[in-house]
Amino acid sequence: MAKEGADMTEETEFMIDKNVGKEPDNVESSGGDAKEMRAVILAGFGGLNKLRVSKKAMPELQGGEVKIRVKACGLNFLDLMVRQGNIDNPPKPPLVPGFECSGIIESVAENTTGFEIGDRVMAFVNYNAWAEVVCTPVDFVYKMPDEMTFAEAAAFSLNFVAAYMMLFEVANLREGMSVLVHSAGGGVGQAVAQLCSTVPNVTVFGIASCFKHAAIRDSVTHLFDRNADYMQEIKKISPDGVDIVLDCLCGENTGKGLTLLKPLGTYILYGASNMVTGETKSFFSFAKSWWQVEKVNPIKLYEENKVIAGFSLLNLLFKHGKCSLVKTVMDKLLCLYNQKKIKPVVDSLWALEEVKEAMQRIHDRGNIGKLILDVEKTPTPLMASDSTETSEAGEEEEEPEGDNDSKERMPFIH
Amino acid sequence: MAKEGADMTEETEFMIDKNVGKEPDNVESSGGDAKEMRAVILAGFGGLNKLRVSKKAMPELQGGEVKIRVKACGLNFLDLMVRQGNIDNPPKPPLVPGFECSGIIESVAENTTGFEIGDRVMAFVNYNAWAEVVCTPVDFVYKMPDEMTFAEAAAFSLNFVAAYMMLFEVANLREGMSVLVHSAGGGVGQAVAQLCSTVPNVTVFGIASCFKHAAIRDSVTHLFDRNADYMQEIKKISPDGVDIVLDCLCGENTGKGLTLLKPLGTYILYGASNMVTGETKSFFSFAKSWWQVEKVNPIKLYEENKVIAGFSLLNLLFKHGKCSLVKTVMDKLLCLYNQKKIKPVVDSLWALEEVKEAMQRIHDRGNIGKLILDVEKTPTPLMASDSTETSEAGEEEEEPEGDNDSKERMPFIH
Repeated sequence: MAKEGADMTEETEFMIDKNVGKEPDNVESSGGDAKEMRAVILAGFGGLNKLRVSKKAMPELQGGEVKIRVKACGLNFLDLMVRQGNIDNPPKPPLVPGFECSGIIESVAENTTGFEIGDRVMAFVNYNAWAEVVCTPVDFVYKMPDEMTFAEAAAFSLNFVAAYMMLFEVANLREGMSVLVHSAGGGVGQAVAQLCSTVPNVTVFGIASCFKHAAIRDSVTHLFDRNADYMQEIKKISPDGVDIVLDCLCGENTGKGLTLLKPLGTYILYGASNMVTGETKSFFSFAKSWWQVEKVNPIKLYEENKVIAGFSLLNLLFKHGKCSLVKTVMDKLLCLYNQKKIKPVVDSLWALEEVKEAMQRIHDRGNIGKLILDVEKTPTPLMASDSTETSEAGEEEEEPEGDNDSKERMPFIH
Repeated sequence: MAKEGADMTEETEFMIDKNVGKEPDNVESSGGDAKEMRAVILAGFGGLNKLRVSKKAMPELQGGEVKIRVKACGLNFLDLMVRQGNIDNPPKPPLVPGFECSGIIESVAENTTGFEIGDRVMAFVNYNAWAEVVCTPVDFVYKMPDEMTFAEAAAFSLNFVAAYMMLFEVANLREGMSVLVHSAGGGVGQAVAQLCSTVPNVTVFGIASCFKHAAIRDSVTHLFDRNADYMQEIKKISPDGVDIVLDCLCGENTGKGLTLLKPLGTYILYGASNMVTGETKSFFSFAKSWWQVEKVNPIKLYEENKVIAGFSLLNLLFKHGKCSLVKTVMDKLLCLYNQKKIKPVVDSLWALEEVKEAMQRIHDRGNIGKLILDVEKTPTPLMASDSTETSEAGEEEEEPEGDNDSKERMPFIH
């Protein structure tokens, strides 16, 4: 756990080039000979003010890797947890966040096969995705279908692979089953809804904030307000409960989710976004919420015939060495994409310099589908009410999240 | 929990006909007009001395039921837990134990279809199986293949359905996976081993007491002694761990089992036999072991990509209303039986009057495969060293388990 996060900010602050972002024209953003590249840098764990765009040495190709000229990057809830240091064993800042991107192969390591310069690809990266250039082992790289845009590709990999593996590898979704998905409007939620529609007669119960309902109503069978008593509503429709609960929240919802399960049903915890929102911002409040997670008695599972699972795609890839299984899943997903049965939902595109506003949007649960960092996008001018640039604001003091409201940029809605 | 078990013994003792078992010839054990039948009666929760064979009123057929003339009954570890009152919400003694039997349909309730008088069947019963006649809803009754013996049928239902559902419904066993099964020599263990052999390239790690190894070596890929450091041995063979752990034990083994799981692996707790053996005989020691079961943190499952499940076939049938799913599973299993891909392993046959010795054998983990109560079997004469009948011994004082050694009957090994 990132105990040292807050303390390390000062000592790493000097490493950040404060001029970057003001002069993006100076940066060579294409061509193979540049030694430096633009990247989003997290200077230390904490609030939005720990993020900025800076020049950074270009990564060097290692054996078995490809170098990708990045076009688009995916922004996930996990990135907010990383920013706050709210993950197990985070790397030492300063670091470049980001776990997925799409782009064009720029070079391939010697004796490394499967890809050629110019290939359009999407890739998982173990940090360092939010940059103009990324190096990653070929095991984590997948060719994009011709008709897929770079933004779609960056919205595809993590969300659809996670959704697919939870539904079909962990929970064994079959005809006639029912699925409850929290955050139905988010990237994984929308992927889950689409994948459920590929199986006959699957009922999807979605939970989302009220303001998203109009936009996502057609993607699920039943939609409930996050703040309503959805337990009661679901029990009315399906008195036996549901077969699969996908929960990216954490805390009281775990007990609720288990209660809603049918016998032989599977509850999957795939994230812990409650740890980021609300009052759980400091390390100590995080640790408190961690320890208070309701533990599960295996004998209760035995009596009730229930299954509880945890799923972390990034651990599966980068800690547990399951990249060949993920490759198989990706192949199946690309088939479904080519058959036009699934299509990633992109919420909005943001320049690297707009990463704070993008994070604020996902933090506020404002998004419907995926937020994308578009590496080639020019930052949208700030709204008229603003007097300072967001990326320079609040550098010296802890910046409370949410006070960016008055200087919000307009996202580029896809 | 059965707090009142011990206290109730005295008040129920008078209900037991102490002469039964001495005069089995007086009982009309066939023909439709008899008003009474022989049955094993549990007078109160406790040791073996709480069991005896007695006359009891014949059950009356209810709507939707069939009446079965019982030929053979299955004896399971769960029956020992019932005897001790070590289950949740046990019924009030005196009661007739037993959850499965095979026999011949003797009558069918009005407006009830699917079975005819004379059909050879196997059935689940919610208690009351260990008797000459049983009534149970048709939902829990399955026709036997012609070549299946009654003993095989009584050994088939619970063990194979449980093994199948755990491997294929809960854990999704596929080609190339590995399975660890505790109590590999028991009824479920042998069913698991056989079912695994129906899937290509599945590795089965079995754990069993040393003295069983010669008998069951061919049924599993790797066999380990219960008292050896099997964790180390398995890690040597399969450093990544195993895909499925089936654990009928409880307590320290839960942690061990979870540790041995591969990422995306499934640990299934399907019983709690440690609660019966050893020192956990009284209610209080039971409660202690119950509460000390290691609870599982869902966030640890998330980090490690692991699945934990509980499975209780009887709860699934009698509490959770899943009999149509079980029927589907039984159909698949009978196909496999007819194709000679699976065959129940019967350890030994015992007369109803020998139920104490049979229970002692399963308690001592002496069995390889299933123990069967053969309703038509005459008790085997006691061995030469005995002077009293076991079924009459120790009625007035608490009888320590295991002191039957000196008056053991020879089981009829199948």
